[in-house]
Amino acid sequence: LDYQHVQVPFEITLWIMLASLAKIGFHLYNKLPSVVPESCLLIFVGLIMGGIIYGLNDKSPPVMDSDIFFLYLLPPIVLDAGYFMPSRPFFENMGTILLYAVVGTIWNVFGIGFSLYGICQVKAFHLQDVSLLHNLLFGSLIAAVDPVAVLAVFEEIHVNEKLHILVFGESLLNDAVTVVLYKLFRSFCEMPTIKSMDVFAGVGKFFVVGLGGVLVGLTFGMTAAFTTRFTKEIRVIEPLFVFLYSYLSYLTAEMFHLSGIVAIIVCAMGMKRYVEANISLKSHTTVKYFMKMWSSVSDTLIFIFLGVSTIGENHEWNWPYICFTVIFCLIWRALGVLVLTFFVNRFHVNTITSKDQFIIAYGGLRGAICFSLVFLLPDFHRKKLFIAATTVVILFTVFVQGMTIRPLVDLLAVKRKRESAPTVGEQIHIRFLDHLLAGIEDISGHWGQYYWKDKLEYFNSKYLQKILLREYDQPKSSIVLLYEKLERKHAIELAEAGQLGHAPSHPSLVRSGFLCSNNDRSVITDKKLEVTLNPDVLENIQEILARNLYRIRRTGPAYNRHTLPGETEPTEHAKEILILRHQSL
Amino acid sequence: LDYQHVQVPFEITLWIMLASLAKIGFHLYNKLPSVVPESCLLIFVGLIMGGIIYGLNDKSPPVMDSDIFFLYLLPPIVLDAGYFMPSRPFFENMGTILLYAVVGTIWNVFGIGFSLYGICQVKAFHLQDVSLLHNLLFGSLIAAVDPVAVLAVFEEIHVNEKLHILVFGESLLNDAVTVVLYKLFRSFCEMPTIKSMDVFAGVGKFFVVGLGGVLVGLTFGMTAAFTTRFTKEIRVIEPLFVFLYSYLSYLTAEMFHLSGIVAIIVCAMGMKRYVEANISLKSHTTVKYFMKMWSSVSDTLIFIFLGVSTIGENHEWNWPYICFTVIFCLIWRALGVLVLTFFVNRFHVNTITSKDQFIIAYGGLRGAICFSLVFLLPDFHRKKLFIAATTVVILFTVFVQGMTIRPLVDLLAVKRKRESAPTVGEQIHIRFLDHLLAGIEDISGHWGQYYWKDKLEYFNSKYLQKILLREYDQPKSSIVLLYEKLERKHAIELAEAGQLGHAPSHPSLVRSGFLCSNNDRSVITDKKLEVTLNPDVLENIQEILARNLYRIRRTGPAYNRHTLPGETEPTEHAKEILILRHQSL
Repeated sequence: LDYQHVQVPFEITLWIMLASLAKIGFHLYNKLPSVVPESCLLIFVGLIMGGIIYGLNDKSPPVMDSDIFFLYLLPPIVLDAGYFMPSRPFFENMGTILLYAVVGTIWNVFGIGFSLYGICQVKAFHLQDVSLLHNLLFGSLIAAVDPVAVLAVFEEIHVNEKLHILVFGESLLNDAVTVVLYKLFRSFCEMPTIKSMDVFAGVGKFFVVGLGGVLVGLTFGMTAAFTTRFTKEIRVIEPLFVFLYSYLSYLTAEMFHLSGIVAIIVCAMGMKRYVEANISLKSHTTVKYFMKMWSSVSDTLIFIFLGVSTIGENHEWNWPYICFTVIFCLIWRALGVLVLTFFVNRFHVNTITSKDQFIIAYGGLRGAICFSLVFLLPDFHRKKLFIAATTVVILFTVFVQGMTIRPLVDLLAVKRKRESAPTVGEQIHIRFLDHLLAGIEDISGHWGQYYWKDKLEYFNSKYLQKILLREYDQPKSSIVLLYEKLERKHAIELAEAGQLGHAPSHPSLVRSGFLCSNNDRSVITDKKLEVTLNPDVLENIQEILARNLYRIRRTGPAYNRHTLPGETEPTEHAKEILILRHQSL
Repeated sequence: LDYQHVQVPFEITLWIMLASLAKIGFHLYNKLPSVVPESCLLIFVGLIMGGIIYGLNDKSPPVMDSDIFFLYLLPPIVLDAGYFMPSRPFFENMGTILLYAVVGTIWNVFGIGFSLYGICQVKAFHLQDVSLLHNLLFGSLIAAVDPVAVLAVFEEIHVNEKLHILVFGESLLNDAVTVVLYKLFRSFCEMPTIKSMDVFAGVGKFFVVGLGGVLVGLTFGMTAAFTTRFTKEIRVIEPLFVFLYSYLSYLTAEMFHLSGIVAIIVCAMGMKRYVEANISLKSHTTVKYFMKMWSSVSDTLIFIFLGVSTIGENHEWNWPYICFTVIFCLIWRALGVLVLTFFVNRFHVNTITSKDQFIIAYGGLRGAICFSLVFLLPDFHRKKLFIAATTVVILFTVFVQGMTIRPLVDLLAVKRKRESAPTVGEQIHIRFLDHLLAGIEDISGHWGQYYWKDKLEYFNSKYLQKILLREYDQPKSSIVLLYEKLERKHAIELAEAGQLGHAPSHPSLVRSGFLCSNNDRSVITDKKLEVTLNPDVLENIQEILARNLYRIRRTGPAYNRHTLPGETEPTEHAKEILILRHQSL
């Protein structure tokens, strides 16, 4: 037995396997997932596992490594979120999201920090040694809403799209603020004196970290799109580039102390439309599927590790401090949302209702990012207190808020996500209005959202598409693309139901069990079989065979590492059909 | 700048990126890949990179780590090979393949070992200090044909399927022999005296290592198939299980010193048919695509690293030893193939022609496995000589043999792979003959290949399928599955060419540019457009709309981590179509 040799990959594989099996287990009982969010169950599994490890080894189970979290577990989730981000609602509410993410987070950090400092002054709690700076540092890590936790809960409660994007967008974009404030306070803690220069430098850093992330993301996204122009000959490695470039954007941003989350989101959103147009349909399915799979596994692992890391002796249970942390987190977030929304509503026609405000405030879940940040703190004598407080806040938000938010949404009758897609009429109206508003803004000299969107679209179709797309003929409008997609889907369904137009397939009709219960129909089919002997029809069949014979030629069963069996160029097929049809006319 | 923090993932990502870009680069010039095999070009890129690193740092570039090779780079390639293995030719030629893999490899090991020992006795070469045991150890690592190198060359020359599977199968299955002999001789080298017991134990180990690998593979393969029975609710993580279980089978086998390659191949071949039936179509596309992608990248990295590792000061250039190694490798392989084929041909009706024999002998390429094994040798004073000899043998086989095999195949007019798939008639005949032969074998009491195949098929449909398949109704015969697949493909092509039976789509016809050049046809279409106003046709259209309206309902643009946009159950669709069709009749 040589366990040492294979230990690292073996244990990683086993952890992933455990996570996947846990996921399967929950979904075996249909009722469980509808009552308890998956994140709670996974933390619970983690707690049990941690307890077992603790019981067996009699020492604290291993804590989730912050490096592993930030370098390997977080990027897939953020990439998935960025790639599948509904871009229209995101950009429409950009201003509000940024306000919540930047001003709201700063508000929370200072609110929580100062009020906890106040609590520390109460002599009965024995907390006088926690300085203001330490409290602010703690505030900076506990204030940030966590995208992983928010996603895990919000995707199950199906609130309306605007509300969803407000909370989710905030949780993604506050990363830049959190990074800056956390690093600022941490360096202040280690400095002997703080000059006013340092504070100003900190403010300047905001813009560097955020905009730097955007720049890094854009660069890598455009490079990725450009690279996929040249992958026509080797379809199999196309999906790789999507992952490689977005991961590189994250790592590069982290390397330069910029916001990695912002970088990877910008990269994913930027490359999506060009990559989609360049790569093959199968590659795109793989990209989408693998992204979902990866983020799903990462997310499962994070919650399980969160549970495992909770068990142990890393905590200092000073209950007053912990309880006040939970309370202040709730209060300051609620206040912040109220105040900010007041200003937002004054400038918008579509106001945020008070119900929505409640859900925004209540949906401010904390998660693994806080947890990793608190373990990254430099060692000082109250670190264990901060760890305990963070753990309790996370468990409270995920368990109590996460489990009650669904009943609350039901109770308040918060506006839900519309189930049906917009009709074609609505879509045409939306597009028409966009153009109209862009025109009005242009005439009135107001450079608003629609004006910029129009300009961007122009720039895109004039320059970007020519550089980044492989087959740039004319821009296909989205409605044509939709039509093609529906047509293809329809065809597959018809084939599966066994009723393709040209060659009615008798066996498939019989197999479907439909004919057996319907006598009239079977008579028709019998008649059809008789008719088949008719010379006209025979000729017709021969023609169909001649037209489709190319299919037979292609199905070679050979093994090849670079191609998938039966994979051929769809355009070539279509061309061949057209040529054959031309000849047969 | 904080490079330390992201170094490991950043450098891995960059290496993969380099490999992928190198691949794209080659395929940009269409002529290059048709003359030089990709493996040669990749080694060449590696050599250049190695030279650059050597020139800049003035020390040897890092050598490919054997652990990285065996734990991370080799498994994807072998998994891919096992999963897409054409099982019929493989099992039909199983006896021959095993003979080549086991007896042939032992023959080569001892042949090369003893004759190199003979060379070492020549005083002029200054090699008297290389003992017989060391020569045999070297023989055991240099004798094995490498699956990665064989694949890279053979998939480009398109020889007939039997020839391909003979060389490729041998290269995969000789792993068990290589592992045993290599470890045996290595431990003998370190022992003071060798007892006859040790030699017998070594022979016994053959069976343990090989059959143990088969057992581990089967266990994990069946578990994987069983697990995918329960993934219906969480389609996104289905592909994961295929990778996790096969990787676990490899690691487990390695852990117990069994043959990991055999284990992963058996696992992949065993689970394939059940997994395919259990998981969704999209999951299966992802599995296939990702496997191809991964193996393709691994393979690229291996060849690049091979090139990089060649540069440096790890070599002792004793040319007589090196040249004789190359010569003996060629001679013993040729002799082995001749002798073994003589026996094989006496017992088979389909004999292996002398042309085929030449290609089998000539196609015995060495690759990264030898290279990793030679670096794993314990340190002794002639290790650098062995490294040099291995490097030269690999480069010789990959460059000289790899580049000349294609012209030779052309020159000898070796029977090629048939381009067309077997016709339905042929398939029916093959199946009929299988049954017939199974019956004859049963009656005559001869337990041959067909008898066992029949028994296995019976066992499979009677027990295994019931346990491992989710929807086990009645076994669909492969011809029905093929029919469904063709029907589906046909439908997609029709849709892409814009001519679905029920709803002829005018815009798509116009777009295809076909109608513009054909006046008769456009008249017909015009007529059709007029006819559309006919009340009968209108009714028909309404019926079609009513029948297909469910499609519209489904396209919701919401973001969810666990589902892909627009993903629904295909069976559900088909059912709904049938119900609607029933109502409309």
